[in-house]
Amino acid sequence: MWGGRFAEGPDAIMQAINASIGFDRRLYAQDIAGSRAHAAMLAAQGILTDSDAQSIREGLLTVLSEIEAGQFPFRVELEDIHLNVESRLTEIIGEAGKRLHTGRSRNDQVAVDFRLWVRDQCDAAISGLTALMRAFVAQAEAGADWVMPGFTHLQTAQPVTWGHHMMAYVEMLARDRSRFADARARMNECPLGAAALAGTSFPIDRHRTAAELGFDRPTANSLDSVADRDFALEFLSAAAICAMHLSRFAEELVIWSSAQFRFVRLSDRWTTGSSIMPQKKNPDAAELLRAKLGRILGANVALFTVMKGLPLTYSKDMQEDKEQVFDAADSLMLALAAMTGMVGDMTANREVLAAAAGAGFSTATDLADWLVRALGLPFREAHHVTGALVALAEAKGCDLDELSLSEMTSVHPGITQEVYSVLGVENSVRSRMSYGGTAPDRVREQVARWKTLLG
Amino acid sequence: MWGGRFAEGPDAIMQAINASIGFDRRLYAQDIAGSRAHAAMLAAQGILTDSDAQSIREGLLTVLSEIEAGQFPFRVELEDIHLNVESRLTEIIGEAGKRLHTGRSRNDQVAVDFRLWVRDQCDAAISGLTALMRAFVAQAEAGADWVMPGFTHLQTAQPVTWGHHMMAYVEMLARDRSRFADARARMNECPLGAAALAGTSFPIDRHRTAAELGFDRPTANSLDSVADRDFALEFLSAAAICAMHLSRFAEELVIWSSAQFRFVRLSDRWTTGSSIMPQKKNPDAAELLRAKLGRILGANVALFTVMKGLPLTYSKDMQEDKEQVFDAADSLMLALAAMTGMVGDMTANREVLAAAAGAGFSTATDLADWLVRALGLPFREAHHVTGALVALAEAKGCDLDELSLSEMTSVHPGITQEVYSVLGVENSVRSRMSYGGTAPDRVREQVARWKTLLG
Amino acid sequence: MWGGRFAEGPDAIMQAINASIGFDRRLYAQDIAGSRAHAAMLAAQGILTDSDAQSIREGLLTVLSEIEAGQFPFRVELEDIHLNVESRLTEIIGEAGKRLHTGRSRNDQVAVDFRLWVRDQCDAAISGLTALMRAFVAQAEAGADWVMPGFTHLQTAQPVTWGHHMMAYVEMLARDRSRFADARARMNECPLGAAALAGTSFPIDRHRTAAELGFDRPTANSLDSVADRDFALEFLSAAAICAMHLSRFAEELVIWSSAQFRFVRLSDRWTTGSSIMPQKKNPDAAELLRAKLGRILGANVALFTVMKGLPLTYSKDMQEDKEQVFDAADSLMLALAAMTGMVGDMTANREVLAAAAGAGFSTATDLADWLVRALGLPFREAHHVTGALVALAEAKGCDLDELSLSEMTSVHPGITQEVYSVLGVENSVRSRMSYGGTAPDRVREQVARWKTLLG
Amino acid sequence: MWGGRFAEGPDAIMQAINASIGFDRRLYAQDIAGSRAHAAMLAAQGILTDSDAQSIREGLLTVLSEIEAGQFPFRVELEDIHLNVESRLTEIIGEAGKRLHTGRSRNDQVAVDFRLWVRDQCDAAISGLTALMRAFVAQAEAGADWVMPGFTHLQTAQPVTWGHHMMAYVEMLARDRSRFADARARMNECPLGAAALAGTSFPIDRHRTAAELGFDRPTANSLDSVADRDFALEFLSAAAICAMHLSRFAEELVIWSSAQFRFVRLSDRWTTGSSIMPQKKNPDAAELLRAKLGRILGANVALFTVMKGLPLTYSKDMQEDKEQVFDAADSLMLALAAMTGMVGDMTANREVLAAAAGAGFSTATDLADWLVRALGLPFREAHHVTGALVALAEAKGCDLDELSLSEMTSVHPGITQEVYSVLGVENSVRSRMSYGGTAPDRVREQVARWKTLLG
Repeated sequence: MWGGRFAEGPDAIMQAINASIGFDRRLYAQDIAGSRAHAAMLAAQGILTDSDAQSIREGLLTVLSEIEAGQFPFRVELEDIHLNVESRLTEIIGEAGKRLHTGRSRNDQVAVDFRLWVRDQCDAAISGLTALMRAFVAQAEAGADWVMPGFTHLQTAQPVTWGHHMMAYVEMLARDRSRFADARARMNECPLGAAALAGTSFPIDRHRTAAELGFDRPTANSLDSVADRDFALEFLSAAAICAMHLSRFAEELVIWSSAQFRFVRLSDRWTTGSSIMPQKKNPDAAELLRAKLGRILGANVALFTVMKGLPLTYSKDMQEDKEQVFDAADSLMLALAAMTGMVGDMTANREVLAAAAGAGFSTATDLADWLVRALGLPFREAHHVTGALVALAEAKGCDLDELSLSEMTSVHPGITQEVYSVLGVENSVRSRMSYGGTAPDRVREQVARWKTLLG
Repeated sequence: MWGGRFAEGPDAIMQAINASIGFDRRLYAQDIAGSRAHAAMLAAQGILTDSDAQSIREGLLTVLSEIEAGQFPFRVELEDIHLNVESRLTEIIGEAGKRLHTGRSRNDQVAVDFRLWVRDQCDAAISGLTALMRAFVAQAEAGADWVMPGFTHLQTAQPVTWGHHMMAYVEMLARDRSRFADARARMNECPLGAAALAGTSFPIDRHRTAAELGFDRPTANSLDSVADRDFALEFLSAAAICAMHLSRFAEELVIWSSAQFRFVRLSDRWTTGSSIMPQKKNPDAAELLRAKLGRILGANVALFTVMKGLPLTYSKDMQEDKEQVFDAADSLMLALAAMTGMVGDMTANREVLAAAAGAGFSTATDLADWLVRALGLPFREAHHVTGALVALAEAKGCDLDELSLSEMTSVHPGITQEVYSVLGVENSVRSRMSYGGTAPDRVREQVARWKTLLG
Repeated sequence: MWGGRFAEGPDAIMQAINASIGFDRRLYAQDIAGSRAHAAMLAAQGILTDSDAQSIREGLLTVLSEIEAGQFPFRVELEDIHLNVESRLTEIIGEAGKRLHTGRSRNDQVAVDFRLWVRDQCDAAISGLTALMRAFVAQAEAGADWVMPGFTHLQTAQPVTWGHHMMAYVEMLARDRSRFADARARMNECPLGAAALAGTSFPIDRHRTAAELGFDRPTANSLDSVADRDFALEFLSAAAICAMHLSRFAEELVIWSSAQFRFVRLSDRWTTGSSIMPQKKNPDAAELLRAKLGRILGANVALFTVMKGLPLTYSKDMQEDKEQVFDAADSLMLALAAMTGMVGDMTANREVLAAAAGAGFSTATDLADWLVRALGLPFREAHHVTGALVALAEAKGCDLDELSLSEMTSVHPGITQEVYSVLGVENSVRSRMSYGGTAPDRVREQVARWKTLLG
Repeated sequence: MWGGRFAEGPDAIMQAINASIGFDRRLYAQDIAGSRAHAAMLAAQGILTDSDAQSIREGLLTVLSEIEAGQFPFRVELEDIHLNVESRLTEIIGEAGKRLHTGRSRNDQVAVDFRLWVRDQCDAAISGLTALMRAFVAQAEAGADWVMPGFTHLQTAQPVTWGHHMMAYVEMLARDRSRFADARARMNECPLGAAALAGTSFPIDRHRTAAELGFDRPTANSLDSVADRDFALEFLSAAAICAMHLSRFAEELVIWSSAQFRFVRLSDRWTTGSSIMPQKKNPDAAELLRAKLGRILGANVALFTVMKGLPLTYSKDMQEDKEQVFDAADSLMLALAAMTGMVGDMTANREVLAAAAGAGFSTATDLADWLVRALGLPFREAHHVTGALVALAEAKGCDLDELSLSEMTSVHPGITQEVYSVLGVENSVRSRMSYGGTAPDRVREQVARWKTLLG
């Protein structure tokens, strides 16, 4: 009658679609912290007696330990974590439990619970990012002067250093970190006390509960307080940008691990083998990290679409917020931890990198720059002369520094012996001394700066 | 060391990110069916002995019943459903179990398992849609001639019938149904026998396994067979369009249930109340259905993003496919069932609908059309005359049919008494006899057609 | 041969897919500003002569005025804005023009151009948001004490004030504003001088160009500088959250404008009429604003998907960034301006709002709170008693304040005459004095605070 | 006053956000075809005189030629293509022009116009796909037996043939083609005659207009007819799956073009060079094609989000449909044409492919299969023995076929001289004779099948 696989009739279906306890139980610690702060404030304001408040606060700790011990009897018919906790509290402490819900509502309660949870995830992201940044800095320090090809379009463009490449990710992750910090600061306002939507006539002290829960201040508009999910969306947006960064390094790891590149060797811990081809190391973890952006971007789209066009204030649509954020946060934290492990364990293949760095006339730009600097050619002309020299070398099947000086001067008479000093890969990277450039000394400066910043 | 909440070290993290048994266990029935077909084929081709095949096929049934009884010891270190089943099979039947994996690989095995699962979901969607269409047809039949406002921009435009509005959704759902049917037909090719990626040197009979598993034919290219997830993406796309339709009716239900509209009364089963405001009926189920598009669209984005730019053939990124499809399919089936229940239970408020239908000069178009038909005015001029008549009625604070004939002829001298026959709401809807129009007889024709088609 | 509508052969197709001048010409002002700063720095560092630099800087102003006068001959074969400007510069000033590209590359040039453009859009968004906030504050000030229904689930929950509802949007928009400010601060680092990807061997002064272009500092890693599009993604994310807020108020306007609600009247400027139904006011602008989230969210998904898994540094995929950001920024600025106009012009229908505010036992919560405060009932019991009183009123077909005291005491003997003071809508909103509550005095405090903050 | 860059005041902003003529002019041919069919039908039904209809039909051809000659005076104040065409028609033919709009409305008019446009794009996609399939088949035919590495995880797994890899894309594109065909069939119903939303009281013949415009039948419900945008969403979904396929081959081209892989050489037509590094061939076109999925997926998300939760029937939000579909269709057709050009021009590097095919013990699976076939080992044991042999070869630094028979028998005594026949790459691919396998004969069968199917 109900189509497909639902034999249970409407009540079961309504329960299946409506109850949130299956996932919002993850908010138990936040729910209990919020209720404890609320009870303390009610007593301080004379709305509850001190003994009722004391009894509530202790009873909630009992509930907390029951949940953490895995002994709490979650009941689907009580719908959500709020009613499950309150109902059990009243079983434990009796009458006083029924006084806890004074001056609040489930609308502001879920708002504060979820905000506390997301705030914790900002902290976790910042911590996970810091660990990953340290792993990249360590790689950069070890290989500040190892040469490798710098790519555009996956084609060799100019030689760079391993350390410089590693530090590029430190910059990206630093922006991620600051994005989570900004998001955390912006969300750090306490919605508790907005009640159902309009505030309350009880003489509550919202600044007190805000302070006890570590918020900077209470929110300023009760309608907005229960209708707002910006904090979740901003967390998801920051998470998506971060996951995009991870996907880029993951892609590099997959390509660099191929038999054709062999730039890097991943450790056994982060690869899977094959019982039949023992030499095979599939970069499974890197591939899974590459994919995580999909998952997190999907969560973004889901929550934006859910929130689109909702009239104020609370609508049940908003119950769809939690699973998306839970999944995205779990994915991000796991991805950061896995990437930290992989970066810490990986081994660059210095010889292969160095050989690749010098191939493909990668110092042609150095030659052009020398023509500008030493001979005063306009850059566009220097480009033209260099093109002719590369064509000559290609025709001869040799590298640029294997052309003789007379071959050089046949293309441009002003070229001198000094030109050979800029054609080596090592010289090339050493010469890129502009701020932020790939010169080993520049890389070491950045490594030192970040080691200080990362503590 | 690993950042954030991972204290367990790299092996635990790798296992957490890599193992799929936590979710792919849902494929157990498909995995076992695929293995049983494979074993039968191997025996028929002389690759296995009949007694080995017999032993495998019976052992797999034992595994199946263990799983269905909840007694199967799933082991995370065996990574996925395939190895869990095969390993347990070998425990049960011994040596023969090790021969099952001949001429196949996990790559084609997961491809066939997942495809079978998605194919089942197409069937479930078709069945769920059929039930919902029947519910809409029943509403349409009951109210084929009940008048209500037809809206554009949520402003009353012209009167229509309740039955006609209901049948609009039947058309949408019929397209959904045909989309799932097309997707099912397109995916109904069997990848089993593609082996790791290249096919196999064993003399297997792919047509036989395809037939036993209900496929129309084997896939034609082994590389494509293990690299393809089109079937999942097409299922998700069809699901998103269907969820969009549900979101539209859900929005209508939310608006129609408001105190300001009161067009419809939802049953207690699909609403939640308030212990304090017993008259309140929050349309929670409708709101949740409105939100489901977000979730399903998010799954679409996730899987498209994951698949973007993957080189052939199998990459571990593709392991992210299943959770997205599982969640989207569950959401869709639940949404269809809930909507079927809501539509079956809801009660239109005929009086309110009728009163709203006549308000706002909703038959002005009928008047204009009469001017064209009866007086031969060009349509653009008839528009102009009607505008003047509406302005007159508005100024007098009356409806169009409350203008006297002399007032009418003061605007256009050709107007006759006959005009009043088109100004009533009932007459208006009866006159819309064009094919697909809102006239009750037209609606009844469509109801009859669909009752036949839906059996 | 080329399928579909391409008769032109491969070269035309390659040009069509590859050239960006069709859209990146919008960056002309930024490109010229960047080049002028670069030339000044090259001269200060002795890399260019002062006279060459002077000639370049003046020539670029000539190019600028040609473009702004619509007289610039854009050439598709020169691919992009950079080559178009440089080529024209060299036509105008000769040889010196060929020296401009010293120590830079198109990779860092486009990075700085686009970043400057997005930075301008952050400023435009902040300015547009400020104007819209002022419009909401003005509405709030006028109607700080007008009562209206407060909704959850589009069902009346409790009475609130018009001013409070307006101020909810001020809070949302304030968060948007701070998000754009954070994004602007984070992106305000200058990539110029990263050259192709590795930095340069010319003794350039990146701090000088950064300062001239209004950046806080140069970027710290040259690879990251040319590979980074975080600034675009963060702008898009902030724009999407803002567009979501606009979609919510747009939805409210559409619903509130319906004949059934009539809460608000939009001005003629922001609605479209019908030549045949002059009373009709279609809220077209509101509907289009509701839709803009789709467009901006689509741009987010597009750019995230493009950036997914790109190896460092520049890849041509990144050329897809600009059209998405251009379109999203245009949509957002237009939406902010249109909403500012609509909010400024709209008229609340006070009588309708007030009548709706009192319907549906909307002060039942006030009654329950009174039972807690005055009689000391635990909240859960007060809920129960209130439910019984509402049921009694519903059965009698009257409002709560129309129950006699004896009817009241039949449900709970402790109820006194004082209860009637909390049952009026005006009293209800006045009593919600908690911080952030809907009481008119609270609303006026917030209005005053924001008037000061908005200047 | 209006924030940001809008100095023009509200009317200009409303016009900017509301008028669609800037983009919907692309529908001119469809609009005129629809109007011509409508006029002919009105005359056949006696609603118009034959001479009026004749005059309208000829006048519309005049308008068409004005537009195609670039001489049509599009006017923004006429909002859209429909009013622009009708207004000009009336200028040209006078009074009769005002009779054209009888029995229809802009709501059904835009529905039929846009549907005709999207239907054309389905045809264009099918044609573009067919051309691309032919290009892949030609590559496959030329290289049916060229060996190359088959990859999983971008690691060499087993040798395959170039032809087989090319044919994998033919299968994907064939599914795309059938998806567009299904979408075309489903959308091929004519909404004309639904009028504003309710149908009409004029005795129109919707079957006649449907037939004249090449539709299979008229739509069956007038409300659905003007509210439906499924055809656009289904087109976008099919386009996204197709773009995903293109992104996968584009990624392969980028990787294969790298100096490290050198599997393929792209022609000059589809690459860009560098004035300074003449050997450099940046695969720009491939990178841009890889990116197009982002754009098309973004359009999907945009339109789904726009349509979410719209109550019936037409809402102005739906005006956002066209730009998304226009851009996605343009991107797809351009991408198909560019890919067809690239595939047609590219040159496989046979020697490099062959050398890579044999590296990395790629025939280890063949050895394991031989152990099963020749010695009757259970597959899991054969796996184990093969692992030991590969380890032995790796330790000796040789390939599998360089192990002596005595070394072989030291691992498993049953191994015979015959084993060497399966260890060569050529033998390996020849042995994969299962249906859909990589054996050259199997590839040639598929090539022949597709050459017939593609005509």
